Amino acid sequence: MDRVKTGIKGLDEMLCEGLLPQTANLVEGAPGTGKTTIGMQFIYTGITQFDEPGLIITFEEFPQQYYHDAAVFGWDFEKLEKENKLKVIMTSPEVSRLDVESVGGMIETYAAQMGARRVLVDSITHFERLTQDPVELRLLEYGFINALKREGLTSLLTRESSTLLGEAPEGDGQIAFMVDTYILLRYVEIESTIRKALLVLKMRGSDHAKDIRQFEITDHGIEVQSRFEGREGIMSGSPRRMADSFVEAFVKR
Amino acid sequence: MDRVKTGIKGLDEMLCEGLLPQTANLVEGAPGTGKTTIGMQFIYTGITQFDEPGLIITFEEFPQQYYHDAAVFGWDFEKLEKENKLKVIMTSPEVSRLDVESVGGMIETYAAQMGARRVLVDSITHFERLTQDPVELRLLEYGFINALKREGLTSLLTRESSTLLGEAPEGDGQIAFMVDTYILLRYVEIESTIRKALLVLKMRGSDHAKDIRQFEITDHGIEVQSRFEGREGIMSGSPRRMADSFVEAFVKR
Amino acid sequence: MDRVKTGIKGLDEMLCEGLLPQTANLVEGAPGTGKTTIGMQFIYTGITQFDEPGLIITFEEFPQQYYHDAAVFGWDFEKLEKENKLKVIMTSPEVSRLDVESVGGMIETYAAQMGARRVLVDSITHFERLTQDPVELRLLEYGFINALKREGLTSLLTRESSTLLGEAPEGDGQIAFMVDTYILLRYVEIESTIRKALLVLKMRGSDHAKDIRQFEITDHGIEVQSRFEGREGIMSGSPRRMADSFVEAFVKR
Amino acid sequence: MDRVKTGIKGLDEMLCEGLLPQTANLVEGAPGTGKTTIGMQFIYTGITQFDEPGLIITFEEFPQQYYHDAAVFGWDFEKLEKENKLKVIMTSPEVSRLDVESVGGMIETYAAQMGARRVLVDSITHFERLTQDPVELRLLEYGFINALKREGLTSLLTRESSTLLGEAPEGDGQIAFMVDTYILLRYVEIESTIRKALLVLKMRGSDHAKDIRQFEITDHGIEVQSRFEGREGIMSGSPRRMADSFVEAFVKR
Amino acid sequence: MDRVKTGIKGLDEMLCEGLLPQTANLVEGAPGTGKTTIGMQFIYTGITQFDEPGLIITFEEFPQQYYHDAAVFGWDFEKLEKENKLKVIMTSPEVSRLDVESVGGMIETYAAQMGARRVLVDSITHFERLTQDPVELRLLEYGFINALKREGLTSLLTRESSTLLGEAPEGDGQIAFMVDTYILLRYVEIESTIRKALLVLKMRGSDHAKDIRQFEITDHGIEVQSRFEGREGIMSGSPRRMADSFVEAFVKR
Amino acid sequence: MDRVKTGIKGLDEMLCEGLLPQTANLVEGAPGTGKTTIGMQFIYTGITQFDEPGLIITFEEFPQQYYHDAAVFGWDFEKLEKENKLKVIMTSPEVSRLDVESVGGMIETYAAQMGARRVLVDSITHFERLTQDPVELRLLEYGFINALKREGLTSLLTRESSTLLGEAPEGDGQIAFMVDTYILLRYVEIESTIRKALLVLKMRGSDHAKDIRQFEITDHGIEVQSRFEGREGIMSGSPRRMADSFVEAFVKR
Repeated sequence: MDRVKTGIKGLDEMLCEGLLPQTANLVEGAPGTGKTTIGMQFIYTGITQFDEPGLIITFEEFPQQYYHDAAVFGWDFEKLEKENKLKVIMTSPEVSRLDVESVGGMIETYAAQMGARRVLVDSITHFERLTQDPVELRLLEYGFINALKREGLTSLLTRESSTLLGEAPEGDGQIAFMVDTYILLRYVEIESTIRKALLVLKMRGSDHAKDIRQFEITDHGIEVQSRFEGREGIMSGSPRRMADSFVEAFVKR
Repeated sequence: MDRVKTGIKGLDEMLCEGLLPQTANLVEGAPGTGKTTIGMQFIYTGITQFDEPGLIITFEEFPQQYYHDAAVFGWDFEKLEKENKLKVIMTSPEVSRLDVESVGGMIETYAAQMGARRVLVDSITHFERLTQDPVELRLLEYGFINALKREGLTSLLTRESSTLLGEAPEGDGQIAFMVDTYILLRYVEIESTIRKALLVLKMRGSDHAKDIRQFEITDHGIEVQSRFEGREGIMSGSPRRMADSFVEAFVKR
Repeated sequence: MDRVKTGIKGLDEMLCEGLLPQTANLVEGAPGTGKTTIGMQFIYTGITQFDEPGLIITFEEFPQQYYHDAAVFGWDFEKLEKENKLKVIMTSPEVSRLDVESVGGMIETYAAQMGARRVLVDSITHFERLTQDPVELRLLEYGFINALKREGLTSLLTRESSTLLGEAPEGDGQIAFMVDTYILLRYVEIESTIRKALLVLKMRGSDHAKDIRQFEITDHGIEVQSRFEGREGIMSGSPRRMADSFVEAFVKR
Repeated sequence: MDRVKTGIKGLDEMLCEGLLPQTANLVEGAPGTGKTTIGMQFIYTGITQFDEPGLIITFEEFPQQYYHDAAVFGWDFEKLEKENKLKVIMTSPEVSRLDVESVGGMIETYAAQMGARRVLVDSITHFERLTQDPVELRLLEYGFINALKREGLTSLLTRESSTLLGEAPEGDGQIAFMVDTYILLRYVEIESTIRKALLVLKMRGSDHAKDIRQFEITDHGIEVQSRFEGREGIMSGSPRRMADSFVEAFVKR
Repeated sequence: MDRVKTGIKGLDEMLCEGLLPQTANLVEGAPGTGKTTIGMQFIYTGITQFDEPGLIITFEEFPQQYYHDAAVFGWDFEKLEKENKLKVIMTSPEVSRLDVESVGGMIETYAAQMGARRVLVDSITHFERLTQDPVELRLLEYGFINALKREGLTSLLTRESSTLLGEAPEGDGQIAFMVDTYILLRYVEIESTIRKALLVLKMRGSDHAKDIRQFEITDHGIEVQSRFEGREGIMSGSPRRMADSFVEAFVKR
Repeated sequence: MDRVKTGIKGLDEMLCEGLLPQTANLVEGAPGTGKTTIGMQFIYTGITQFDEPGLIITFEEFPQQYYHDAAVFGWDFEKLEKENKLKVIMTSPEVSRLDVESVGGMIETYAAQMGARRVLVDSITHFERLTQDPVELRLLEYGFINALKREGLTSLLTRESSTLLGEAPEGDGQIAFMVDTYILLRYVEIESTIRKALLVLKMRGSDHAKDIRQFEITDHGIEVQSRFEGREGIMSGSPRRMADSFVEAFVKR
């Protein structure tokens, strides 16, 4: 089965060559971890390297914000939109939910007309605020992500995590159980510096890398790098040095 | 008493040859830990190795999702369903609860007609969302798992744990007190890598392994491996190296 | 004063020869720690070794479940029930509460007719779900455990703790303040293995062992063993090795 | 000013010779820590050593329970009650609150008639359940403890702490701000054993010992012993050995 | 600008010679940390050393309690009140709030007539219980503390912290953002002893000491002493020895 | 693109020469960390060094408070206001929200008339108290910060964090996801002293320093200094010494 490459250096390798087609893929992180950048790069790569048009469904930011943010990385989203390869759709969770479940809805229409293959949903967190009832929310979210699959789209969903370091004490949302891939972005404090970590926790139907890797947001987008060495407790955000360095110091004498 | 083998390498050994017949067995874990895979392998093993037909009761995913997910491991669920050895029943907690308590309900009918011996309930978490009243919920859950026993079925129930690392701060659900076997799946961070751990915490009427073992999801299903060595606090998800390595380093000099 | 022996190896010694007559004794633990087994052994010992008939008041499980669970240890509860030495009463907290406060109620009648001296209440947790009002609950629980004392019964009450490792963050229930004896069962992770610990925290009117001991559920029931050596923080469920082993390693050189 | 001696070995010394007259003194602890025993000894000492008659106001236990519990220590409360030196008053928070604020109420009458100087209120926790409104509760509690002072009584109030080890995460009640003395009882796990610790946190109008001391419940009542040596974090209930022992081991070589 | 000296040894130095005039200054601590003593000493110093009359606004304790508590330190508050240099006003948050906002209110009248320059509000915590609405509460508190400033008063506000060791998990109140100075009192466990720590966290318009100092309540009032040496995590209430002592031990050999 | 310099020594360097024009920039911290001082310095620098007039929108403090607080640093805000280069607008979240969305509102009018380029919103926390509904709040906040951008203003928003040390357990607000820059101020306890730390966690469209730096409030405003050396867990507020110092001590011998 052909993989849907994100074009993100290091990430495709972690995903064993890329995402699986027509799957829903969650990227979760605290503010500033780079969720939207990963999503934009996923869309940009699809259009420019694989000729796969893409949609961006936004529940908050205006299209201009995406043009502006993409331009920082040298990605000309306005031009792509004019070439009918990209469509930034600003909508609300309520509307988009009904839309994807209607025949001939806006998203279906755009997808069909453009031949869209990829979609960025930024952010699925806005769905979580639609209802206080977890049963209803789960149905809404499940219906939405499956409708995107039925349109033939591979989706990347961003999700906001309000805890800056480590895991939210109350645990994370239910959507992680429904998606095919679950990618976590985390801040990690090492030597008085805040670094960024990426982990593929889950990938249905495929093997994937299990290690926690550093990544950076560079001038050209995301770059996933090597794993963290010599530290325990990285997922806590405040890792401790492993005792190994100690032991080595003694033993090598 | 004959054991109901899961067919999962290493797990049957931990269970002293397998589950006990007509028992309810809980498998709990965070997203991506492999709950459903364990359940599918339990059903597949029953059909193909022991000629025990099986049911899958799903409250969310469509049968196609199971066909697809099973195919990754080389298990042809569509074919088994056509051979009347497997039935994937998509329903709701409300309906299934009433169904199992009626004479001649759907589950009873399928079980009788197929001679089903095993059932996967994926996931029992959906029951927990039926009511806010813990007394009522407990009655509903107890009634449901006992009805399955009365049908002569050995059940494997999956349960979602929303905490990624370690234990949920508010503790886990009441169902753990009602089931016969309680199996925990956990993520464990070791040397910048996320590994998976399995523990049999409880098994009524049988001895069982008490150690925490690593496991992997391979191309052919679940493989339970050796225990974790030289680490303390594995259940926290962020174990620390044991001081032993220290002491050894000094003493061996 | 004669002691009411539990017959559990090691536990009677911790209790300075046994429980005190006509007292209420609480055994609290997470799922699978062996609360009910301790209770059944307490009842079985009474009947078979001390000729003290016993009652089991159950708020959830059917009598058959007790017959079955007891049989695993070689205890023939069905036979004892036929001999009128044991009575398993399946009821509800509401009914049992009213019953014990009525003259000539069912529990009183059974107790009198059988000459019962011991009772297992499995589990008192079901009382805690009767009302949201802590004042009312406390009155209900207090009334119930005192009514059992008035019947001349020594009671063993099981209580469910939903936290798997360590203490519930919100603290434990009020009933611990009302009972005469408070026994805690805990899981403890040591060297990648889950062991079981038992502690007598409180025993009104008697001295008792203060140490935390390991125990196992064997083919013949519960066996309390030696204390944990060389570990700190056992009650947390994830003890750390004591620094002593370190120091010794250096000093002994 | 003459001190009101508790008669508890070691505690009077910590209190610089005893409590101050006509003060309210709080003793707080988890189940089994010995709150009521301290209170009974305070009353017994007053009657038998200082000829100060005493009252016990109980909101839950029957007088018989106190007779029984006191007898374990060789204290004959029934006899004292017949000699009109002790009165155990079983009442409710509602009644006692109104009573102490009325002229010629029951408590005032008993106190006057017996010449009572000391009172044990077991437990003030029952007041905390009178109302959900913290402002109202504070007024009720403040009014009650001041009314006792106006009767010329030195009061010892027990308070239940539901957290077994360490401090309640939500902090403790408001009453600690209103009393004159605040004594904490705590469980401490050391070398696989649960010990008991006592600390005088606050004593208005007097100096007091600031150290955390071990205590035991012996055949003759409470005995406060020496402080804990070589441990950090005692108040957490799970102290760690201090690094000192380490350093010493190395340095002494 | 002239400083308003507290007269507390060591504290004025930490405040760079004293509080600023017409400011609101918060002192927060657990029961028994000495909040009220600091406030009384602030008032007493003003009257006796600087000829600045003072008010005490109390929402709970009777004037007699202050006379009594002050007398322990040799401060004769009754006499000062007779000399019209001190006024203890027992009121409620509701009344005092309206009072300070009225022309010719009681507080204004007393302040004017006495020429009061300092006020102790004991405790501002009672304000926090006036309303559940944080917006309304903030307005009430802000209005109150500014009205005191308008009267020309330098205020010292005590605030109750119900967490005994370390910080309240839910964070502290909003008032800390509104006051000019924020002084924290904390319990610290060191070598099995509870010591008291004082920290000036914030002081608008002035430099201040940033270190955490020990203090004691002596026969003559508060004495702030040296900082804590060789400990990490003092604000947690359970500091650990710094590794330095370790390193030194090795290195000095 | 020209940068908007804060004029704060060290901070502009961390921001790669300054903030981006027409962006919303969040500064979050506990009481006393210096949020408002940073904001005032940002405004003062704009006026005096770059001839960019500024607005201060305050939801609580009176203009006089800003004049007073600024004067401490030698900044004459009253004079600047008279010169029409600064305008302190005291308003409410409700009014300001409607204002910025109206044509010819007060803020627009001031901004246009003065040629304002910078605005300090002190504090955005007051918005968070406008509604309990997170969806509505998010809309309100988003609308407000975008309206400021449309006026051509670069905004600095302060946000109150009520947790003194470390991160709020419940995570921080949603606004962090909407702003362009997210700067955290934190207290850090080191060697019995409370220091201040600053971290730029997020900066849209620009690189930025990733390290955690110390800063001080001096007589002339904020000074950002070097990073913390040799400590782990700075963001927790209670860092531990890194094991390195240990190892070095041994290895260097």
